[in-house]
Amino acid sequence: MTRPVPIAIVGLGKIARDQHLPALATGANFRLAATVSHHGTAPGVPSFATLAEAFAAHPEIEAVSLCTPPQVRHALAREALLAGRHVFLEKPPGATLSEVEDLKVLAAARDLTLFASWHSRFADAVEPARAFLAGRRLKSAEIVWKEDVRHWHPGQDWIFQPGGMGVFDPGINALSIITAILPQPIHLRRASLAFPANRAAPIAADLIFEDVSGAPVTATFDFLQTGSQSWDIHIEAEGGRLELSGGGSALSLNGQPQALEHGSEYGRLYDHFAGLVRRGEREVDCWPLIHVADAFMLGERREVPAFDW
Amino acid sequence: MTRPVPIAIVGLGKIARDQHLPALATGANFRLAATVSHHGTAPGVPSFATLAEAFAAHPEIEAVSLCTPPQVRHALAREALLAGRHVFLEKPPGATLSEVEDLKVLAAARDLTLFASWHSRFADAVEPARAFLAGRRLKSAEIVWKEDVRHWHPGQDWIFQPGGMGVFDPGINALSIITAILPQPIHLRRASLAFPANRAAPIAADLIFEDVSGAPVTATFDFLQTGSQSWDIHIEAEGGRLELSGGGSALSLNGQPQALEHGSEYGRLYDHFAGLVRRGEREVDCWPLIHVADAFMLGERREVPAFDW
Repeated sequence: MTRPVPIAIVGLGKIARDQHLPALATGANFRLAATVSHHGTAPGVPSFATLAEAFAAHPEIEAVSLCTPPQVRHALAREALLAGRHVFLEKPPGATLSEVEDLKVLAAARDLTLFASWHSRFADAVEPARAFLAGRRLKSAEIVWKEDVRHWHPGQDWIFQPGGMGVFDPGINALSIITAILPQPIHLRRASLAFPANRAAPIAADLIFEDVSGAPVTATFDFLQTGSQSWDIHIEAEGGRLELSGGGSALSLNGQPQALEHGSEYGRLYDHFAGLVRRGEREVDCWPLIHVADAFMLGERREVPAFDW
Repeated sequence: MTRPVPIAIVGLGKIARDQHLPALATGANFRLAATVSHHGTAPGVPSFATLAEAFAAHPEIEAVSLCTPPQVRHALAREALLAGRHVFLEKPPGATLSEVEDLKVLAAARDLTLFASWHSRFADAVEPARAFLAGRRLKSAEIVWKEDVRHWHPGQDWIFQPGGMGVFDPGINALSIITAILPQPIHLRRASLAFPANRAAPIAADLIFEDVSGAPVTATFDFLQTGSQSWDIHIEAEGGRLELSGGGSALSLNGQPQALEHGSEYGRLYDHFAGLVRRGEREVDCWPLIHVADAFMLGERREVPAFDW
């Protein structure tokens, strides 16, 4: 048992309160030493307006977890790395690919840990799904990711601003899973993106990928789904059919629900980050973000009615 | 002097006729063994409807140059690599980043040369500009790339179709130069893209980058410039002012026009490709395409009047 690593959280928005604070409180690898946020404080934890002030008051801080919207993540990550701290990036790791590349270079040059986290990859069913598909030929895959943005992201205007990615904010979770479990890479062939008349980011998207053997992988993302919500992936592979549902929390193989080891995505994320820090490693997989960038670059745009909360 | 490498050209469109055929006819490194195109033939060169037929009739073909629109480049490049041929990709190297990554992996696995070419990097003034800027601190850079699409791309509808990139088709030339000559990487901060009401790709764009020290790099791309055309880059650096004009063909330093060694961009490109083939190397720099993808992902969209030829 090593001593807990002092960590600061930047950005106490919804994801930090719902996931990061509980995971840090439960886990033994980190000790929350400071918060930096315009949106409040955590009980009993020193709070600061800037990272610089947090480092000045608590030089023992060794790591920083960035939970802000992606548009401001690069500057904060640079500041933390330049101050010699390890960095945990919430997903997506940045608003652009180039800024993530910059952070990779900087972290490597300073020999610091940089972890581009994809929480959905740590859902209960993802590793068993990957193991099932390993070495099998893919026949087809279908991603259906439909949720109600008003319920899950109430009033979060940043999500529809440039760099917020709109429906790709949840959709990139599906892409983080599919790129982790399929035995071969996929490439985007066609995409259609629906932009509300009054917003800079899409509210729905249809994507058609192929793997390198030509097997089709389709994705339907929708941010206006009321009633039953869908975070499902259906896969037909050689010798087996797989269904991941509930955002990677449940697995059925050939129609049979599978027993899974239950755990917390964010608990596992922080355990993984702690391992990277201990071993002096970096983990920055940009594939989910590359697919999103490709969808914006290749996709056809259609305008749909204005969106208001 | 080594024997000329038998090469096939795929896609006898404008760029192949204007540049590739003359460069191959003039240079000593390659011998044009076949063409594959729906758009005609080259005098005295066997012509085929498909790459497979060209390889069957001329198994001596060792390399393939892909001059088609980017949307179909990936499948052709895969076919050529799987058939054991070296591949030269016109710019941009693909319609998506993921397909270029796929080709990199495939070429490396087969130990074949893959060259993602950026012809503007071989313009007369680019290497002298890079040498001048090396080690200097950048203060600011301004890219102005304005041309008349009706003059330079008459009737080329693919350019406004998904994956054709619109004004980024010439704009990526500027990005290929700026990423070659600046001493530090740049990252996109803001972008605004103008989409004609009836087209899937932008006809104008304004980009604001920063280098890692915070120096601003702006780019203005316009496809509706009549009269005087602009392919210019103005750079203020520590201890000097640099102007690249004419798409990299002319250079002035601190207001003084510089004498340059004159050569052909495409002649140099094929010489470079021949060197890569001889040495068994690959060269696939995706940075210009990453910046374009970032601009589509981060950029604000505005609708402008419909465009017709």
